Amino acid sequence: MSVPPRRAAGRLAATPSLAPRDLSRPRPPAMAWQVRIITLFPEAFPGVLGLSLTGRALKEGRWGLETVDLRPFGIGKHRNVDDTPAGGGAGMVLRADVLDRAIDTAQRGAPADRDAWPLVYLSPRGRPFTQAMARDWSRAKGVTLLCGRFEGVDQRVLDHHAVEEVSLGDFVLTGGELAAQAMIDATVRLLPDVLGNAASTEEESFSAGLLEHPHYTKPAEWRDQPIPPVLLSGNHAEIARWRQQQAEAVTQARRPDLWAAWTDGQPD
Amino acid sequence: MSVPPRRAAGRLAATPSLAPRDLSRPRPPAMAWQVRIITLFPEAFPGVLGLSLTGRALKEGRWGLETVDLRPFGIGKHRNVDDTPAGGGAGMVLRADVLDRAIDTAQRGAPADRDAWPLVYLSPRGRPFTQAMARDWSRAKGVTLLCGRFEGVDQRVLDHHAVEEVSLGDFVLTGGELAAQAMIDATVRLLPDVLGNAASTEEESFSAGLLEHPHYTKPAEWRDQPIPPVLLSGNHAEIARWRQQQAEAVTQARRPDLWAAWTDGQPD
Repeated sequence: MSVPPRRAAGRLAATPSLAPRDLSRPRPPAMAWQVRIITLFPEAFPGVLGLSLTGRALKEGRWGLETVDLRPFGIGKHRNVDDTPAGGGAGMVLRADVLDRAIDTAQRGAPADRDAWPLVYLSPRGRPFTQAMARDWSRAKGVTLLCGRFEGVDQRVLDHHAVEEVSLGDFVLTGGELAAQAMIDATVRLLPDVLGNAASTEEESFSAGLLEHPHYTKPAEWRDQPIPPVLLSGNHAEIARWRQQQAEAVTQARRPDLWAAWTDGQPD
Repeated sequence: MSVPPRRAAGRLAATPSLAPRDLSRPRPPAMAWQVRIITLFPEAFPGVLGLSLTGRALKEGRWGLETVDLRPFGIGKHRNVDDTPAGGGAGMVLRADVLDRAIDTAQRGAPADRDAWPLVYLSPRGRPFTQAMARDWSRAKGVTLLCGRFEGVDQRVLDHHAVEEVSLGDFVLTGGELAAQAMIDATVRLLPDVLGNAASTEEESFSAGLLEHPHYTKPAEWRDQPIPPVLLSGNHAEIARWRQQQAEAVTQARRPDLWAAWTDGQPD
C-alpha cells in the first residue's frame, strides 16, 4: 500500500503492554460498528479496507478498526507466541496462554453476548462465511477477529473462550489477515450510508438467493454484439422480468446448490 | 500498509499509455509464476501479499506481480471507465471497450491456452474458488485477474474474451482486489520452496477432502485442560489414527457436504 498507516478517525492502534495501567486505560466511546483484530501483522490493516468506499467510511467514522498486536503477549525475551505441535508434525501452533491474554485485551468493553459481538477465529475448519453472516455481523455492535499464522492455534483456547470458527472458503491461506479483510469489507458495505448510490444491495447476488443478472452499458453495439434490446425498451416491467429470468438461468446453470435451495423456498 | 510499494524483484508496475511504443515494449522473461492484475486500485497491491511468507517469496523472485491500472484506458479527458447500466438500476457498469484494451495489454506474452494461463474475472456469479483451483493455478505459468468495482462489468467483454468468472465465496465485496489477494495467497503458498518448513500442505484442510484435526502445544496442561494424552504418548501410529478420527469427526459435524463427498470416495 502506498498510503502509510495513520491514526485516522475511527482507527486506533492498540499497543498493549503487560503494564496494568495500559491494560486498564479507558476505551473511546464506540457508537459506530467496531472491529478488533488480533494479529501478528497489525501493519496489514487497514490495507485494501483503507481505499475506496470502505476507506472513506472509515475516515468518516462510520466504522472503527482496532488492531491488537499479538507479539507483546508472547513469552520470554523473544516474546514467543508459538511452539511445536504436540504429537509432532510440521509447522508451529499458537499457544493457548498467549492468545488468552490477547483475547482478554481485545474483548475489554465488548458485550459478552456473542450475537451482539461475535468472537471469531478465521480458520478453514470453520463455518463458511456467507452474505447472511455479513448481514448478521453488520447488525451487531462489532466483531473480534483472531488471525492465525503458522499451522494453527491451540484448541484449548478456542474451547475456553467459546470462539466461533469461520472459514472464508474451502481453501487454505498463509494467515487469517486476508480472510479478515474480506469479511470486514463484505460487512462494512452493508452498514448504513456506506455504499450510497455507488451500488445496490437489493438486486445483487445472494440478496434473493440467486446470482445476479448480467450487466450492460454503452456503447449500444460493441464488436457486433448489441445490448439485449429489452434493456433499451424503456419497459420497466419487461426489463424486471428479463433480469429475473437471467438470474434464475445463471443460478441454475452455475450453482445447482443455490438453485435447489431457492426453488425449495418458492411457493408452488 | 507501512511498506511503500517498491520495484522489488519480481514486481513491475505496468503503466500503460495509448502510445504504440509503450504497448509493444518487451516484457522481462517470466520464469517464475506470474500474476497480472487489472484494477482501478493498483496501490492495493501487493498489500498483505507483501508480508510474511508470500512477501519474502515475492522479493526472492519465486513469483511475480504486475498491476495494470485500468484508469489510463478510460475514455475522454476524465478517462471514464464506466457508465450507467442499460435498462436502469443502481450503480455503474465497467465498459466493454475500456476493459477490452486493458485485457489485451495484460495478456501480451501470456500463453493463449487458458489452462496454462487462466483469465479470470472475480465475481460472486462465478465458480467458487477452492483448494483444487489453487493447485491448478499453481501449476500454470501465471494468471490474469480482473478486479471489478461498482455494480459489475459489461457482459459482452467477458463473452468476447472467454473470461472465466470465479467467486471467492457466497458474499459480495466492494471490489475484486481482496478476492484477488486471497486467491493469490492460496496459490503462491503451493509454489515450490515458498512455505519451507513453516507449514505442511500435506495434512492441512482440504488436502485429503477433510477438515484438519485440532492442534495443541505447550503447556501440557492449561486452565485444567490437558493436551489429549495420546499426543504425548510418542506412539506415532496411535497419534496418526487419533488425528484421522478427529479430522473425520469434525468434518462430519461441521461440513456434511464435504463429509458426503469424502465418504463417496472411500473404498467400501
